[in-house]
Amino acid sequence: MIQVGIVGGTGYTGVELLRLLANHPEATPSVITSRSEDGLRVDELYPNLRGHLDLAFSKPDVKRLSECDLVFFATPHGVAMEMAPELIAAGTKVVDLSADFRLQDTEQFKQWYGMEHSCPDLLKEAAYGLPELNRAAITGSNIVAVPGCYPTAVQLGFAPLLAHDLVDTSRLIADAKSGVSGAGRQGKIDNLLCETTESMKAYAVPGHRHLPEIVQGLERISEHSVGLTFVPHLTPMIRGIHATLYSTLTQSPESLQELFEQRYANEPFVDVMPTGSHPQTRSVKGSNHCRISVHQPQNQDVVVVLSVIDNLVKGAAGQAVQNMNILCGLEETCGLTQVALMP
Amino acid sequence: MIQVGIVGGTGYTGVELLRLLANHPEATPSVITSRSEDGLRVDELYPNLRGHLDLAFSKPDVKRLSECDLVFFATPHGVAMEMAPELIAAGTKVVDLSADFRLQDTEQFKQWYGMEHSCPDLLKEAAYGLPELNRAAITGSNIVAVPGCYPTAVQLGFAPLLAHDLVDTSRLIADAKSGVSGAGRQGKIDNLLCETTESMKAYAVPGHRHLPEIVQGLERISEHSVGLTFVPHLTPMIRGIHATLYSTLTQSPESLQELFEQRYANEPFVDVMPTGSHPQTRSVKGSNHCRISVHQPQNQDVVVVLSVIDNLVKGAAGQAVQNMNILCGLEETCGLTQVALMP
Amino acid sequence: MIQVGIVGGTGYTGVELLRLLANHPEATPSVITSRSEDGLRVDELYPNLRGHLDLAFSKPDVKRLSECDLVFFATPHGVAMEMAPELIAAGTKVVDLSADFRLQDTEQFKQWYGMEHSCPDLLKEAAYGLPELNRAAITGSNIVAVPGCYPTAVQLGFAPLLAHDLVDTSRLIADAKSGVSGAGRQGKIDNLLCETTESMKAYAVPGHRHLPEIVQGLERISEHSVGLTFVPHLTPMIRGIHATLYSTLTQSPESLQELFEQRYANEPFVDVMPTGSHPQTRSVKGSNHCRISVHQPQNQDVVVVLSVIDNLVKGAAGQAVQNMNILCGLEETCGLTQVALMP
Amino acid sequence: MIQVGIVGGTGYTGVELLRLLANHPEATPSVITSRSEDGLRVDELYPNLRGHLDLAFSKPDVKRLSECDLVFFATPHGVAMEMAPELIAAGTKVVDLSADFRLQDTEQFKQWYGMEHSCPDLLKEAAYGLPELNRAAITGSNIVAVPGCYPTAVQLGFAPLLAHDLVDTSRLIADAKSGVSGAGRQGKIDNLLCETTESMKAYAVPGHRHLPEIVQGLERISEHSVGLTFVPHLTPMIRGIHATLYSTLTQSPESLQELFEQRYANEPFVDVMPTGSHPQTRSVKGSNHCRISVHQPQNQDVVVVLSVIDNLVKGAAGQAVQNMNILCGLEETCGLTQVALMP
Repeated sequence: MIQVGIVGGTGYTGVELLRLLANHPEATPSVITSRSEDGLRVDELYPNLRGHLDLAFSKPDVKRLSECDLVFFATPHGVAMEMAPELIAAGTKVVDLSADFRLQDTEQFKQWYGMEHSCPDLLKEAAYGLPELNRAAITGSNIVAVPGCYPTAVQLGFAPLLAHDLVDTSRLIADAKSGVSGAGRQGKIDNLLCETTESMKAYAVPGHRHLPEIVQGLERISEHSVGLTFVPHLTPMIRGIHATLYSTLTQSPESLQELFEQRYANEPFVDVMPTGSHPQTRSVKGSNHCRISVHQPQNQDVVVVLSVIDNLVKGAAGQAVQNMNILCGLEETCGLTQVALMP
Repeated sequence: MIQVGIVGGTGYTGVELLRLLANHPEATPSVITSRSEDGLRVDELYPNLRGHLDLAFSKPDVKRLSECDLVFFATPHGVAMEMAPELIAAGTKVVDLSADFRLQDTEQFKQWYGMEHSCPDLLKEAAYGLPELNRAAITGSNIVAVPGCYPTAVQLGFAPLLAHDLVDTSRLIADAKSGVSGAGRQGKIDNLLCETTESMKAYAVPGHRHLPEIVQGLERISEHSVGLTFVPHLTPMIRGIHATLYSTLTQSPESLQELFEQRYANEPFVDVMPTGSHPQTRSVKGSNHCRISVHQPQNQDVVVVLSVIDNLVKGAAGQAVQNMNILCGLEETCGLTQVALMP
Repeated sequence: MIQVGIVGGTGYTGVELLRLLANHPEATPSVITSRSEDGLRVDELYPNLRGHLDLAFSKPDVKRLSECDLVFFATPHGVAMEMAPELIAAGTKVVDLSADFRLQDTEQFKQWYGMEHSCPDLLKEAAYGLPELNRAAITGSNIVAVPGCYPTAVQLGFAPLLAHDLVDTSRLIADAKSGVSGAGRQGKIDNLLCETTESMKAYAVPGHRHLPEIVQGLERISEHSVGLTFVPHLTPMIRGIHATLYSTLTQSPESLQELFEQRYANEPFVDVMPTGSHPQTRSVKGSNHCRISVHQPQNQDVVVVLSVIDNLVKGAAGQAVQNMNILCGLEETCGLTQVALMP
Repeated sequence: MIQVGIVGGTGYTGVELLRLLANHPEATPSVITSRSEDGLRVDELYPNLRGHLDLAFSKPDVKRLSECDLVFFATPHGVAMEMAPELIAAGTKVVDLSADFRLQDTEQFKQWYGMEHSCPDLLKEAAYGLPELNRAAITGSNIVAVPGCYPTAVQLGFAPLLAHDLVDTSRLIADAKSGVSGAGRQGKIDNLLCETTESMKAYAVPGHRHLPEIVQGLERISEHSVGLTFVPHLTPMIRGIHATLYSTLTQSPESLQELFEQRYANEPFVDVMPTGSHPQTRSVKGSNHCRISVHQPQNQDVVVVLSVIDNLVKGAAGQAVQNMNILCGLEETCGLTQVALMP
C-alpha cells in the first residue's frame, strides 16, 4: 500500500483527494496537514468522510511527510516550492496541485504570482502533469505539476487541431465557464451563495493566471507561437468547467471528428462524443473524464470545440491521482473508475 | 388608460408582461387569451398576481382583441402572423414577442421556422423593436417585432464597434449564456431542474434560430456583410443572458470606453459600466436594463464586450412594454423603472 | 418628500431598503452610513442601483442623521440602542430592523444577545412592528422594532388559531425553512455557494434567537403561556421563508378556512389562499406579501398552517417601509405594490 | 458474477442503479428494459455511463429476464406485480423499487394507488427491504419491497424512540424535505428548473402515498398504534431528503444520544452523529448512508430527530443494491462504499 501525505487538506481539492483515496485500492493517506486545523479530525470538517477515514489534521512536518511514498500539495502557491526540495531529496515523490511548478519561465511566474521562484533547478525537473499530452515525461519524473483546471479543459480541446497545424494559432479564443468551487473554500463575500447563484459573470478579462500556463502548453503542441484570448466566467454551480474553444481553419481536414477520435482513441479519460453532441458538465460530475465534441457550424471555417471536465477531479484531485498512478507504476485508471453522479 | 390585450398569456413572457403591466400607470390588461386555460383565473396559474389582477383567461377572439388599443403576442411563431392583419386593419396596434415579424427575408423565415410567411406585406411595415437602434422606425409604425433575447444582448454589445467600422465583421463571435426560462414553460424533460441545475452545456451549435436575426441586425448597422459564429449555452439559473462578444480591431480607436459611453449616453436602459467592469446578470434581474462593459485584454487587437440582460425583461416583456410606450406616445421608461432584485 | 437615513446600508436588508425606496413616491434616502465603506458610491457596491440612486456611503453621524425625518437601522444588534435615544430626542423617528427593541424583557435580551440593554426606558416606548397584529401601537409610536423574519412568518400563521383559543398552546411546533440571505452578507465559509447549494440542513436546534421573540409575540395573542419547538433550516435558495406550523385542536371550529379569511380580510399584505393550497416562497419573491394556507390532514386534530414570506421584504425591509408608511401617515401600501418575480 | 436485470431503466432510480452496478465487483447488469427506448444505447440517454456500460434498452421480456439471477423493478406502480410471479416461479429473485409490495394491506394499497393488487399471495411473501429494521426477513426471502425514500428516512429516525417506547405515538410529526429528483424524470411543468429552483413549498399535505407505508412501518416497531402527521416539502436541489421528526417523551431516558448510538452501532449505513450535530443532506450525496442526530431542545419533553439520506441511494437504488447483496449472500456493503460528493 502506497503511503500518501497531503499538505493543505482543508480546501476543496484536499477533500476531493481524500474522497478518491478512500476508495483507492493501492494507496492510503497517512498524513494530512493543516496549520489552522491541527488536531481536528478530518471527518469533523468533512462529514462525508465519516466511516471512511480515521485521521486528524496535523501541523506540516517535513520529516513526517518524507516518510510517505508520495506527497500531494493542495496548498496556495508558494508552499510547495519551499518544501518540495527536501522531500525530493529524501526520496519522496511530489505531486503539486498548486501553481508552483507549472510555468517553466520563472519571470512569468514572478509576473503572474507576485513572488520569486525559490527552486528554479527543481522546476526544470518537474513534469507538467497532463498525461494525455505529456505521459512520457511524467513517467520518468519525481515531481509533477498538476495543471490548472482551465488549462486542462482548454489544452485537451485544442490539442488535436494544433498538433495537425490546422488552425490559425495567432487568434485562438477560449471562452470558459467554471463552477464556484474553482474559487476555493475561503470566506469571501464574492463566493457566497447569495452573490453567485442565479447569476453569470465573466471575471479577470484583463488577465487570468491560467493564461500563461495555457499558452505555454499550446505552444509545446504547436509549431507556432500562440495568441490566445481567454475569458473565464463564474457559473452558478458547484463543479464543472465548460470550455468553448474557437479557432479558424487554415486548411480543410477530411474529418475533424475522426481526427479527434483517433487522437484520443487510447485515452481512458478523454471521451470524444459522437458528431453533433453537446457535452454537459454534469456528465463528468465527480468523475475523471474529459468529454469533448467538435463542430464546424454552417461548414464555415470556424471550428468550435466543446470540452467539459469536473474542475475538482480531472481539473485537480483526479488528475493528481492519475499522475500518482503513473509515478508509482500502477494502472493509470486505478481508483478512478467512478461514474459521474447524474442527475 | 390604454387597454391592452395579451394573446398567449400562459408562458413566461406572458406572466412577465402581466407583472410589468400590473404596475404600469398608463396601461392595463383587459383581455388575456389562452386556448388551453380558457376560464381559469390568471392568478390561479400565477399566484404572484393574486391581489394585482382580476382577470381570467379567455379563448382568443379577434373581435374582442380588436377593442384593445394594443395587443401583445406572447405566442409560438405562426400565431401572430395569422391574427395581426385583422387587428391592424381594425386600428389596433400590435407588439409581437414571437419571431413572426423579425426576419424581413421570407425565405430565411421559411428556412429557420419551417413555414411560409402568411402576410409578407404586413411584414414590410413591421418595425424591428430594438429602440436603441431603431427608435425612429418604431415610432411611426403600427406593428413591432420585439427582438429575440440573444439578439438584443448581442446587437447592443456589438453596435458601437460596427457603427464606427472598427472591427473585422467577417469573424465575429458571440458566446452567449442563457438562463433556463429562455426555453419556455413547457413540460420537457430537458428543462427539468434535475436535468439543468448544476450543469452547463452549449446547444444548437450547428445553427440557432437567432443567428439569422442577429446577422440581419448587425448588417443594418455595419457597412459590411457579417460573418458570425454564435454559440448559445444553457446556464443553471432562471433568468439572465450574458453575451461575451469577440471581434478583432481593424483600426485603433482612441478610447473604446468613451465610444461606448457616448453611444449610449442618452439611453435610459443601456448602462455602460466603468472601465474594467464585469457586469453580472443578477444586476439586471427583473429590470429592463442592459449593462455593458468593453475590454481589450493585454492591449491586443481583440475586443471583448460583455453584455447582460434579463431575457424575460429587456429580452422580451420589458422591451415589449418599452415599444408599447413608444407606439402609444408615453414616456419610454413608463412602468419600467423597477430596480433589479439583488441579491 | 420624507427624508430618510439608513444606518448600516451595506448588508442585504440595506440594499433591499434602497431597492424599495428607489421606487417609493413619498420617501427618499438622503443619508446612508457605513464605517467600512465610507466614501464609496452605493451603486458601486450594488450595481442594480446604477441609475436609481446618486449617493455615497458616509460615516455614521448622529447630527446628520437627526436631520432626517426617519432613520432605519439595518445594523447588527447593539448599534441601534446606542444611537436611537439621541435621534428620538431630536424628533427623528426610528425604525430598527435589528433585534435591539424586539424583546421587552431585558433579561431575555441579555441571555440571547449577550449584552446589557442600554436604554430600557426607550425600549418600553418601542412598538413591535408587525402591523397586522399591532397596528394601533405602531401608529402612536416614534420607534418601531421590525420583527425578525422567522417571527413574522410564524406569528402571522399561528395568530388566528391562538386568538380564538382553538389549539393547545403548550405544544406548538414551527418547522421553518429559510433562504441563505437570512444569514447576511458576510464572508463566512458556511454561507458559500459550495457549502449551501444542493443541500438542506437544520441549524440552531438547541436554541435560536428568534425563539423568545416568537414566544413573546404568541403569548400576546393567546391567553395562555406558550410552549414552542422552533427548528430553523437552511434552504438552498437566496430568498424566502416557508414556515410549516403544527398545533393540536382543543375544540372544533366550523371552518378554519373562513376563520383565516376573515382574520386577514382587510390586510393588504396577508393573502389567505384557497382551501387545499400549498403556497410557494417564489410567489412572494421580492414582494411584501405573506401567503398562508391552512390544512387539517385526514380530518384529524392536528392543524397544519403553511406561511410564506420573502425574508428580505415582509421579513425585513418591506415590513420596515410598511412601518415607515404608518409612522409617517402615508397609505400603508405606498411603494410596496411590486409583484413577486415569478419565475 | 451475478447477472442482473433492470425493468424500467430510463428513470432516475434506473440510472442510479446502473451507476452503482457499474462499480459493483460481484454483479453486472445484463438486461435493461424500456418500452419507449427499445434499441437505444443506455449511454446515449445517460452519457455519464459512456465507457462504463455497453448495453442497449430492450423491450421487457419475462423469458429473458428470468435468465437473470435477480431483477430490479424501477417502474411505476402496477408493473412489478404483473411480472414478479412468473419471475419468482422461474427462480429469479425480485427487488422491487416501486410501491407494489410495500403495503401488506391490500385495501390500503387500493385506496392510495387506485388499483387492485394482482398477487396478494406473493405480497405476503415479500419482505420489507429496510435491512436495519428487517434484516432477518429479507435474508430468507425471494422478493423484497424497497421502501420509499421518505419512509426510509423517517423510520430510521423514529425507530430507536419507538422500540424503547419512549414517546407518545399518537402525535408523531414528520416534516420532510426532498430534492426534486424524488418526483422522477418526467416532462411535467411542475418540475421544471424555472418552477422549482429558488423556491420551497409543501405538497400533498392532505395525504401522501408514503403516509400509510410509514405508519405500517412504525407500528411494526412500536407496541402502540401510530398517529402521524406527515408533511413533505419540495426543496430546490436535485438529491437529498431531510426529515425533521418531532415526538413527545412519555418517560425520561438516561441518554438519547447513547440510545441512538447503541441501536445503530453495528449498522454500516446508519451514522449517529455526535451530540449537537446538524446533518446536511450533502454529506450523503451519492452515498448509501443515513446520518442522524437527536436533540432535546431546552431540555423540554419534545425530541427532535434529524435524519438525512440521498433519496436516490439509501432512498432507492442504493438500498436496492443493499438488499440484493443480502439476498445473494454477498457482503452487505459490497459496491456501496462510495464517499459522498462534497462539495
